[in-house]
Amino acid sequence: MTDFFIIKTIALKLGSNKKQYLDLLLADSTGEITAKKWDVADTELPSVNEIKDGDIVKIKAQVTQWNGLRQLRVLKIRKKAANDPVEMVDLIKAAPERPEDMYHYIYARAEAMTDVDLKAICLRLLTENKERLMYYPAAQKNHHAQLAGLLYHVKRMLMNGERMCQVYTNLNADLVAAGVILHDIEKLNEIDSNELGISTGYSFEGQLLGHLVQGIKTIEKIADEIGMPREKATMLEHMILTHHYEPEYGSPKKPMFPEAEILHYLDIIDARMFDMEDALQGVQPGEFSDRVWTLDNRKVYKPSEI
Amino acid sequence: MTDFFIIKTIALKLGSNKKQYLDLLLADSTGEITAKKWDVADTELPSVNEIKDGDIVKIKAQVTQWNGLRQLRVLKIRKKAANDPVEMVDLIKAAPERPEDMYHYIYARAEAMTDVDLKAICLRLLTENKERLMYYPAAQKNHHAQLAGLLYHVKRMLMNGERMCQVYTNLNADLVAAGVILHDIEKLNEIDSNELGISTGYSFEGQLLGHLVQGIKTIEKIADEIGMPREKATMLEHMILTHHYEPEYGSPKKPMFPEAEILHYLDIIDARMFDMEDALQGVQPGEFSDRVWTLDNRKVYKPSEI
Amino acid sequence: MTDFFIIKTIALKLGSNKKQYLDLLLADSTGEITAKKWDVADTELPSVNEIKDGDIVKIKAQVTQWNGLRQLRVLKIRKKAANDPVEMVDLIKAAPERPEDMYHYIYARAEAMTDVDLKAICLRLLTENKERLMYYPAAQKNHHAQLAGLLYHVKRMLMNGERMCQVYTNLNADLVAAGVILHDIEKLNEIDSNELGISTGYSFEGQLLGHLVQGIKTIEKIADEIGMPREKATMLEHMILTHHYEPEYGSPKKPMFPEAEILHYLDIIDARMFDMEDALQGVQPGEFSDRVWTLDNRKVYKPSEI
Amino acid sequence: MTDFFIIKTIALKLGSNKKQYLDLLLADSTGEITAKKWDVADTELPSVNEIKDGDIVKIKAQVTQWNGLRQLRVLKIRKKAANDPVEMVDLIKAAPERPEDMYHYIYARAEAMTDVDLKAICLRLLTENKERLMYYPAAQKNHHAQLAGLLYHVKRMLMNGERMCQVYTNLNADLVAAGVILHDIEKLNEIDSNELGISTGYSFEGQLLGHLVQGIKTIEKIADEIGMPREKATMLEHMILTHHYEPEYGSPKKPMFPEAEILHYLDIIDARMFDMEDALQGVQPGEFSDRVWTLDNRKVYKPSEI
Amino acid sequence: MTDFFIIKTIALKLGSNKKQYLDLLLADSTGEITAKKWDVADTELPSVNEIKDGDIVKIKAQVTQWNGLRQLRVLKIRKKAANDPVEMVDLIKAAPERPEDMYHYIYARAEAMTDVDLKAICLRLLTENKERLMYYPAAQKNHHAQLAGLLYHVKRMLMNGERMCQVYTNLNADLVAAGVILHDIEKLNEIDSNELGISTGYSFEGQLLGHLVQGIKTIEKIADEIGMPREKATMLEHMILTHHYEPEYGSPKKPMFPEAEILHYLDIIDARMFDMEDALQGVQPGEFSDRVWTLDNRKVYKPSEI
Amino acid sequence: MTDFFIIKTIALKLGSNKKQYLDLLLADSTGEITAKKWDVADTELPSVNEIKDGDIVKIKAQVTQWNGLRQLRVLKIRKKAANDPVEMVDLIKAAPERPEDMYHYIYARAEAMTDVDLKAICLRLLTENKERLMYYPAAQKNHHAQLAGLLYHVKRMLMNGERMCQVYTNLNADLVAAGVILHDIEKLNEIDSNELGISTGYSFEGQLLGHLVQGIKTIEKIADEIGMPREKATMLEHMILTHHYEPEYGSPKKPMFPEAEILHYLDIIDARMFDMEDALQGVQPGEFSDRVWTLDNRKVYKPSEI
Repeated sequence: MTDFFIIKTIALKLGSNKKQYLDLLLADSTGEITAKKWDVADTELPSVNEIKDGDIVKIKAQVTQWNGLRQLRVLKIRKKAANDPVEMVDLIKAAPERPEDMYHYIYARAEAMTDVDLKAICLRLLTENKERLMYYPAAQKNHHAQLAGLLYHVKRMLMNGERMCQVYTNLNADLVAAGVILHDIEKLNEIDSNELGISTGYSFEGQLLGHLVQGIKTIEKIADEIGMPREKATMLEHMILTHHYEPEYGSPKKPMFPEAEILHYLDIIDARMFDMEDALQGVQPGEFSDRVWTLDNRKVYKPSEI
Repeated sequence: MTDFFIIKTIALKLGSNKKQYLDLLLADSTGEITAKKWDVADTELPSVNEIKDGDIVKIKAQVTQWNGLRQLRVLKIRKKAANDPVEMVDLIKAAPERPEDMYHYIYARAEAMTDVDLKAICLRLLTENKERLMYYPAAQKNHHAQLAGLLYHVKRMLMNGERMCQVYTNLNADLVAAGVILHDIEKLNEIDSNELGISTGYSFEGQLLGHLVQGIKTIEKIADEIGMPREKATMLEHMILTHHYEPEYGSPKKPMFPEAEILHYLDIIDARMFDMEDALQGVQPGEFSDRVWTLDNRKVYKPSEI
Repeated sequence: MTDFFIIKTIALKLGSNKKQYLDLLLADSTGEITAKKWDVADTELPSVNEIKDGDIVKIKAQVTQWNGLRQLRVLKIRKKAANDPVEMVDLIKAAPERPEDMYHYIYARAEAMTDVDLKAICLRLLTENKERLMYYPAAQKNHHAQLAGLLYHVKRMLMNGERMCQVYTNLNADLVAAGVILHDIEKLNEIDSNELGISTGYSFEGQLLGHLVQGIKTIEKIADEIGMPREKATMLEHMILTHHYEPEYGSPKKPMFPEAEILHYLDIIDARMFDMEDALQGVQPGEFSDRVWTLDNRKVYKPSEI
Repeated sequence: MTDFFIIKTIALKLGSNKKQYLDLLLADSTGEITAKKWDVADTELPSVNEIKDGDIVKIKAQVTQWNGLRQLRVLKIRKKAANDPVEMVDLIKAAPERPEDMYHYIYARAEAMTDVDLKAICLRLLTENKERLMYYPAAQKNHHAQLAGLLYHVKRMLMNGERMCQVYTNLNADLVAAGVILHDIEKLNEIDSNELGISTGYSFEGQLLGHLVQGIKTIEKIADEIGMPREKATMLEHMILTHHYEPEYGSPKKPMFPEAEILHYLDIIDARMFDMEDALQGVQPGEFSDRVWTLDNRKVYKPSEI
Repeated sequence: MTDFFIIKTIALKLGSNKKQYLDLLLADSTGEITAKKWDVADTELPSVNEIKDGDIVKIKAQVTQWNGLRQLRVLKIRKKAANDPVEMVDLIKAAPERPEDMYHYIYARAEAMTDVDLKAICLRLLTENKERLMYYPAAQKNHHAQLAGLLYHVKRMLMNGERMCQVYTNLNADLVAAGVILHDIEKLNEIDSNELGISTGYSFEGQLLGHLVQGIKTIEKIADEIGMPREKATMLEHMILTHHYEPEYGSPKKPMFPEAEILHYLDIIDARMFDMEDALQGVQPGEFSDRVWTLDNRKVYKPSEI
Repeated sequence: MTDFFIIKTIALKLGSNKKQYLDLLLADSTGEITAKKWDVADTELPSVNEIKDGDIVKIKAQVTQWNGLRQLRVLKIRKKAANDPVEMVDLIKAAPERPEDMYHYIYARAEAMTDVDLKAICLRLLTENKERLMYYPAAQKNHHAQLAGLLYHVKRMLMNGERMCQVYTNLNADLVAAGVILHDIEKLNEIDSNELGISTGYSFEGQLLGHLVQGIKTIEKIADEIGMPREKATMLEHMILTHHYEPEYGSPKKPMFPEAEILHYLDIIDARMFDMEDALQGVQPGEFSDRVWTLDNRKVYKPSEI
């Protein structure tokens, strides 16, 4: 096989047979795979040394087994040339819609709000963070860990929230929408991400406080600046604080009004639907997926007849 | 004050002052209240003895306090006369829509199914149980413990489920709808209810097995009779089995496909929205409700400005 | 017996014998007791109606038993006269040291800090809140629910923290002291208290966010104003966030540096020592106290020989 | 050493030294061991390719260490020849009694029942499932994962149950015996097993419902057919439903009559005695076994003097 | 009605109508009931004052209702006269067998042991504690809280243990029997009991250490004196330490050999059978008992047809 | 690099390339590292075979990477010669103070007690166990697993306890000190240790009972011998029993007097301070440590500016 991959990690190591080999972790839009290039000759070193994490490479390889897992035995490897018919965006996991379209959908919903305070804070944070929203994932490893995954998560929650307000008509639709738009906004500062939507870890403040507390601080600051009434600001902060719902998931309080309660369910439903769709990719009808850690180690079933 | 009430319980007791008194629990559509009629004379006994649990009575009384709770001191009490301008339906807690309309909505959804097996089982169970569905509550004490509460619960879940299938388009809408229609159908045999939608306890089989296991047995029997494919029947049974989601709430398995996962969230959202709306009845803007047991003892807040 | 008490609650009620009686909850510095004044004549009503919650009254009464608990049968009751030899401060639960002395101790510790940022924020918050600190309790019901209980709690934690830094010399003593001074400062805005140090409930923001999140917002605001370095501000906020240690007690993160870890233990030790001393008041040597709810229903033992 | 083994898994792999090797998992009646045959020549491939999972092979090998675990370095390997003095039954884990004898014991107990309904359902299910009972294990991995392990489990529970009814004379002995015979009968349909009593996984219905729910459906169906009174059928179903006792182990209800309670303890005692005996095999007096996962990671002690 | 009762508690109190009344808690072999004697005249006081807790009294009374519970309205009360045809033993809850017979059964089992060490420690502790064993209950409130309840508990466990050793033949029958005989022996020093088998509370050492730790200290002391080998003594101590099985029930370790494991199950089975039999006393066929606290608030069912 | 190490384990193994290699686990005072010496020639075997676990060796090696962990590729290895400038004490993890000094500090505190009973039992156990205290670690793997770690743990707890008694003046300082000195004394018999303070496992009695129960037995025995009053002995035993505080950590009771409560906190604080200091060794300012298992997998932060 011959194909293009992104280099997740690359290292030159010394084998127990005293020969150098390349130890690689490769990725494309369908997932990751480990690879080895055995017996790297000294003459190959100059070209090998040019390959860095994040580069695109072209590889010729055989598929082998190691410890029950697929692995590539690399025969040839070189960096992508300028005229190779592949772009970064083809190789990474990405949300299934265009970032601009999703951003536009969300921005339009904020603009349509009748509550001027909620509208002001949403528009401001969407505008200030537009650049990073175009690529940020919603998580380092779990659901929506993909290019623009955060936008995709927010957009589908917004869609679902709109409809729920049609059924449960006592809900304040602007408050629900504002909660959705702001609930994870500080993931932008909790996790670090490169422009491929690949998280490279947690920030200092992210580790010490987390995006719930960071979000509350941000809302407080902006609410002060735009003169949002205290009750409204506190309710928004409460929605951020409670959207993980359980203390062991980071919410020290439980929702105390219906819009906060709904925000939690919009969030968890979107995560679960994402994880189940993801798990079923490539599963044959009538078969189960592998166990999925984020689904409490459940297997997911794809029906055959129904 | 003079008003009509339903008798929930009535008992003639002997006070520590050696005088007879009536100990009453009264109800109307807004809730329940205890009442005492002190010093019942022997001459009153014939008319008092005619009053039974479930009767409608007219009462003249003063509102007093006992141990911090409101109580009625009854001055006069008599059974509703034929020409009194009150009907049972005026005094009980009831779903806010007409049972016939809700039943029709649900039946129409089942009829619109394209999956013939799911359609067949839903229509059959709706038809067979139509009479009791007109009044059954969805619970003995918790959410939707009201006349036709079960229908109301199913109808709003159906409405919400339809909309969710528009957002999460990979879901099989007929399977979601069938799960909603069948998930609590065996509450009809788990709890006992009179025709006012007031549950009078649990049945023998309800106590030993519960409506999840009872529902599975019912589906199995009908699936056999109508020749539903095994995979489909088992998936429906799995949806019933898992809709409480956590082992400690009665589900020994967790959902293993997206429609079963969604069924759980449709159920819990409808229960929570009901409980929160219920808790906020009569709460002033800017105030909190009392603590609500079914909401983990949370208070619910009614905003003032927003 | 004849004695002075504070009125916690007073209500005129109608007994089952159709006579009016006064239902009272009284308090002095040793605790609370219920009381009844039976058969209140109409002629007594004018003077009785003048007595309000929080008033000091003089009472003549007999001690009786009701349901195994002591109760007072009130014979006479009147409001404190101007020349009665009793002051509010004699009747309420209060910290065993003078508020001014405790405040001075704490202020002096802050002034002695070598870290200018920590010193600035501590001095500022102590100064701004001095008036309320003079009487605020540390809780509504649990440990240090007493006049100036918050100051007493902070002072003893400071004393203990100073000494611990002598043993664990790697600790930054200023950071520990700042954490102690600030950890509960927002109890001033989480709970409401009158000037007797009696909490009358939780504030709106207190219920929706809690003093941990409120504290973080306050630190963030002041840190911005005084230009505290971000790392230091975040570490202080982390100390506030983690000092309850367990998610189910309100801390979504666990301490990530030694000073935050120590802050938690200083807090819990002071609470436990307070509760145990409190439980042992009036217990005879060789006997156990009643069960104490805040100590997981433990009884506390007072030794006889040792 | 030279010996016979069953092939659990066999795979031809390419080593990092570019040579082919065989990666094997072997088993005999004492347990399992991994094995490697290095440097497989192309001339060996025809005979190697004939060896399949489940075959018996003769092996000449050296015992080596890898990562602290014993491993075989295979020198020679060939399939069992027709005249080799070994049978499958000699190499697999099997219950210590003859399946026919155990079946006969259980069948006789059912035949001796005085309750005609319980007798009828037990005899019918024993008869219908006789063929598979002869080899089915009681589990995929845990206790009684051995040839005819299910029969052995049921037989010892029956023996223990009989005796317990002598001590606790209020128990209905037929009901206890019927509960024992039926409690795991649907393991036959929950797990898949080959005729060696080696489970190869879970069935579709086993994964979605589990043997408790499957057992209830089976009892319901037969109870209908034989006209068993509803109370008796429901009690049997309740016994199946509750025999795992805790929600997190699959029982959403707890036993509500003494025979159901006893069934649980008969089950757990038999499992624990099996696991402890199993753990102590090969342990020297005065020594502990390894940690046993199914015993909450306990070590088991074999006494030296007692 | 006229009947004999034991006085559990007696108190003379002043009612809200300013009259004296007697507040009584009475008991006979079927349970307890509260009682009031209203309007006690001063002339009755001399005879009333002679009645003490634990006395037998003859009572004439009417059965009334109070708060949904039965209560006696006492018309006449006097102490049992010498010639009244009733004995203490007729009025208290007692094990259903004669203490002497149960003691003899247990003693005989100890004497039959072939292990001289186990025999020696059992005989010694049975002999030394014979007097108190004749009446001690096994608990203050839970199972076997009855005259000689401890003997009854041990005897039935011994019977069950003997039979279990016939099924699980790898068990050391003497070790199981010794564990049974010794496992609760220090309840004699953990709880206080009068000679009616009514526990009056916990001892000082019982509260600070508990009968598990107390039992280990006793075994250690006697083992030293009789020269029991260390391994055997430690194993016995381990059996005592682990027989409650779960940390939250007082066992910091789990059983590490089969005899310790079985001891736990013998104990819990005997407790559960006792509690279920107890709960079913007086329940009609086809009905459920009240909820039972020691059975996790389960109701227990008495079948009608089976 | 060339350096001295202790051999933790050494094994000669056969590689998949059929050549012998040495598999080593080495340690010095900063931690442990794995090492390989490839291609061991037969001529090297005599000198290699002389090297045993616990020996000091001199090694010449290159640092390599394996699976993300540092490893040594050994070029030369030989046993320490008599004149090599290194002693065992230089290479092992050890408490930062001299054992004699720590022992002296503790002994002096015991000698200064005014309570003669507490003084007697402390001095006796310190004297009897002096030899082993000089090197025993406080644990096999967790905090204070180092030479004389037990003494260091006790000494710092004593220092902290002294100071806490100055703040909480109701505490009996001798009782606190005695609790500290005795709380872990039976770790000497629960775990086995060589004279380097390296634990080699748990003793038989340690596994079956644990150092809490062992400690109680020891106190009971000595209390008997020296005639300590029962109350005092029982209180000491209670302190030992409760110092782990939670059932799941081995304490079946919670502290019932203030000195027992404080003992727990002195213990846990010293453990946590040790673990955090340990985790921060080698961490750069502004960085986090690795996750630490004994700190619930927290990372620990070393500040940069503060």
